[in-house]
Amino acid sequence: MEGNKKYVQESEVIMTEMVLPNDTNTLNNLMGGKLMHWMDVVAAIAAQRHSNSIVVTASVDNISFRNPIALGNVVTLQSQVTRAFTTSMEVYIEVSAEDIPVNKKYASHRAFFTFVAVDKEGKPIKVPELIPVGNKQEELYAGALRRRQLRLILANRMDPKDATELKSLFDLDGVNKK
Amino acid sequence: MEGNKKYVQESEVIMTEMVLPNDTNTLNNLMGGKLMHWMDVVAAIAAQRHSNSIVVTASVDNISFRNPIALGNVVTLQSQVTRAFTTSMEVYIEVSAEDIPVNKKYASHRAFFTFVAVDKEGKPIKVPELIPVGNKQEELYAGALRRRQLRLILANRMDPKDATELKSLFDLDGVNKK
Amino acid sequence: MEGNKKYVQESEVIMTEMVLPNDTNTLNNLMGGKLMHWMDVVAAIAAQRHSNSIVVTASVDNISFRNPIALGNVVTLQSQVTRAFTTSMEVYIEVSAEDIPVNKKYASHRAFFTFVAVDKEGKPIKVPELIPVGNKQEELYAGALRRRQLRLILANRMDPKDATELKSLFDLDGVNKK
Amino acid sequence: MEGNKKYVQESEVIMTEMVLPNDTNTLNNLMGGKLMHWMDVVAAIAAQRHSNSIVVTASVDNISFRNPIALGNVVTLQSQVTRAFTTSMEVYIEVSAEDIPVNKKYASHRAFFTFVAVDKEGKPIKVPELIPVGNKQEELYAGALRRRQLRLILANRMDPKDATELKSLFDLDGVNKK
Amino acid sequence: MEGNKKYVQESEVIMTEMVLPNDTNTLNNLMGGKLMHWMDVVAAIAAQRHSNSIVVTASVDNISFRNPIALGNVVTLQSQVTRAFTTSMEVYIEVSAEDIPVNKKYASHRAFFTFVAVDKEGKPIKVPELIPVGNKQEELYAGALRRRQLRLILANRMDPKDATELKSLFDLDGVNKK
Amino acid sequence: MEGNKKYVQESEVIMTEMVLPNDTNTLNNLMGGKLMHWMDVVAAIAAQRHSNSIVVTASVDNISFRNPIALGNVVTLQSQVTRAFTTSMEVYIEVSAEDIPVNKKYASHRAFFTFVAVDKEGKPIKVPELIPVGNKQEELYAGALRRRQLRLILANRMDPKDATELKSLFDLDGVNKK
Repeated sequence: MEGNKKYVQESEVIMTEMVLPNDTNTLNNLMGGKLMHWMDVVAAIAAQRHSNSIVVTASVDNISFRNPIALGNVVTLQSQVTRAFTTSMEVYIEVSAEDIPVNKKYASHRAFFTFVAVDKEGKPIKVPELIPVGNKQEELYAGALRRRQLRLILANRMDPKDATELKSLFDLDGVNKK
Repeated sequence: MEGNKKYVQESEVIMTEMVLPNDTNTLNNLMGGKLMHWMDVVAAIAAQRHSNSIVVTASVDNISFRNPIALGNVVTLQSQVTRAFTTSMEVYIEVSAEDIPVNKKYASHRAFFTFVAVDKEGKPIKVPELIPVGNKQEELYAGALRRRQLRLILANRMDPKDATELKSLFDLDGVNKK
Repeated sequence: MEGNKKYVQESEVIMTEMVLPNDTNTLNNLMGGKLMHWMDVVAAIAAQRHSNSIVVTASVDNISFRNPIALGNVVTLQSQVTRAFTTSMEVYIEVSAEDIPVNKKYASHRAFFTFVAVDKEGKPIKVPELIPVGNKQEELYAGALRRRQLRLILANRMDPKDATELKSLFDLDGVNKK
Repeated sequence: MEGNKKYVQESEVIMTEMVLPNDTNTLNNLMGGKLMHWMDVVAAIAAQRHSNSIVVTASVDNISFRNPIALGNVVTLQSQVTRAFTTSMEVYIEVSAEDIPVNKKYASHRAFFTFVAVDKEGKPIKVPELIPVGNKQEELYAGALRRRQLRLILANRMDPKDATELKSLFDLDGVNKK
Repeated sequence: MEGNKKYVQESEVIMTEMVLPNDTNTLNNLMGGKLMHWMDVVAAIAAQRHSNSIVVTASVDNISFRNPIALGNVVTLQSQVTRAFTTSMEVYIEVSAEDIPVNKKYASHRAFFTFVAVDKEGKPIKVPELIPVGNKQEELYAGALRRRQLRLILANRMDPKDATELKSLFDLDGVNKK
Repeated sequence: MEGNKKYVQESEVIMTEMVLPNDTNTLNNLMGGKLMHWMDVVAAIAAQRHSNSIVVTASVDNISFRNPIALGNVVTLQSQVTRAFTTSMEVYIEVSAEDIPVNKKYASHRAFFTFVAVDKEGKPIKVPELIPVGNKQEELYAGALRRRQLRLILANRMDPKDATELKSLFDLDGVNKK
């Protein structure tokens, strides 16, 4: 820690789970809902470590599931805080899976969850700033502002006109200049 | 059913759950991950009913959690298909909660999940068209196209320049014309 | 609500569940015990809604299971209060199931549970009267008295001689007059 | 075993469970539904042992819950087959509970479940006869016929007029002779 | 009870469980971890009964698993206190399993767990002495001292030089005298 | 990999879990049985990764629990293969816990589990050799032989006289020479 600041690595979490029968659907693949449950836990622990406080899930960004994960496979979830705002933190989660007997490891999904740090009465409290180090951390840090604007617009808490950061995503000026 | 078409009401699902100790965090509130698990199940059943097939979760749109739901409260989840595409369906989920002994019922969250209908080998199969009836259903039906574009952009499967429907969300032309 | 009275529809509950691997026996059918667990929850919520209080299960009437419900099927449980006594309520539960991919929906079981409304110390408290509306509700309301007598006799809390209502079930006078 | 007959003690089962947080309601007492789940399992094992086959729950007789069972208490469930019919068996279950730190042990509930023995396709198969030994077993054996008639009447599968055994329960002749 | 002493039979526990899908690994056999979970519960209840107090698991002795236990099999766990020390108790657990439809019953594993009796603040409290009766109980009682020494050595809390009882296990004097 | 040899780091696993209400005893501390369940899973995954096969738990060495782990705490389990024998592997597990809101992290327990690699019929198959690198890995590798002898003696599968490696543990020669 550095004053009221913290490094990304101080809150990184690795979680490993085995897909059991009850986690699967009729095709014997992991159900999306169970996976989101694990993602919420691994992300909440990262946010707890950054803020040294209780945290509550504030939002979940768009998740696009790709490869089905089969019964008996091993799922690895890695989470890290990407940016801290006044009382909230964005957490990045990367999910991969392994079919160990056939020695196959594959990327699965990635997602962003947002948490608010709260005291025992559930009131929001301030969290330390995050210091990104290196390209990947800095890129995630920079993108957090843009994702936050999209989040606020989708929750009807920001007027799209004010989403200056978001324009880069849609390359809006370029689109409309022509 | 009407040819290969189906009405919204044919796939509506209501699910009611009681918040048990293991579903809660340190503040005795329902964990976001558990809630998403329920949302995935109630939405999957609606998609199954529309397509009369096995379905797999393809994506989850941005969810913004608002009110904490306490231990012992009753959660009601309602789901309905909003639009069917070739092999996929968008499902709308509305979550409300009740603290019955104090007679308080409150809206909680809403979300959109997308499912793909598959056969027993997991290959995508065609689904019936959806016929919206009335204002609310038509509005959800119309918005599905815009949400789909945002989903594809966020999953890096569409170039933002081609997201013609999405512009209405950001009122982009209006913003830039000035 | 009407004075200290309530309508049936104010407490109706619909619960939808998917049969998961751990809910099944060696034949891949839903275990009776798991089904009774769900029936208890859906019935308790109806009783809570009618009484706006905590409730405890007082008794379960004879249940006769008919069709096995297979893994992956969807179970729908509907519950409604049929009659309120001083501090207790009888709840009627209807269970149906669907094999969605083959588009088959079938009735499963029906049952009556009784609950007592209690305060935070677990002491019984008064509940509102129930107002039945229409044939089905009135029939259930009328039959509640007869089922209550059978319940009390089977629990050794009523002498069969005093079970005047129950005679209609066995058509006893008719039987013995001849 | 004696020819195709079996003694009660060959199928007796004792099950001991500790009440965990998720098994309890808002009053920190064991939920009726969870208890019935345990009762179904302990009774099914007794029926399996008697028939050396897979069994399915056919019916549950009226259960009257008496004392609440608290979180942390230990529940003991004892089951035994009371009588075998052609392909079905009646099982008696006795439930007691202990609050061990205060050295209090108390009777809780008793119940009768009925199971059908089936082959791997789910078709009913014959079961051995049961040989009752001693007063308690003989009394349970004798009462099984009466309970079976009540069960059939309540499931609308027997006309009350034919329930000759059941009359003893209601002492019907005595009542009507006067 | 006899003064502050108790007999073995006062704390014996029998627990019966059915192996469900979620308890099994890819080979459809009961996972060792789940079995240890059950062993901990059945042993803790025996220790609670002997001490009439809350207990916490202090240690688990070497367990050697032999036969795999298949899905659908019934597992019987029997536990008894073998010896009481000042605030701790050694508990012996014997596990057997049955494949009921093929009428096969087989011994599985045995193990020793140690528990400490504690008050509500988690502080160790004194427990009654145990009175062994008969050969098997006396043998277990005598061996408890030797196992305790091995336990303390393996936890680095006893110098092997002081493990006088343990020598009998390794027949050390015999070995080294030559 | 190097021929049929593998490095320790190829099979290391990190698992992070949050202690939920149902994992706890009356003192709101994590139950030993639940912890052993997690230990079995994290160790099995390491053994799977080393052998690229299905594995079954063969034995668990003496475990000595020290600090209670409270509800809401985060548990981190790290596992690594310490030595491979013909068809079996010893796995070392280190458990630590955190009370994040008060910023306290503490070592909890360590344990050794043994697994056998098997094919789909459950028959033992050969596993790669393990190459230890560095002091800690070499020490664990060397100690594995001694622990294996103790394990075999305790399972009555080795005569203590033949346990040459084990003597170093008890420093037997030193003890008896004097």
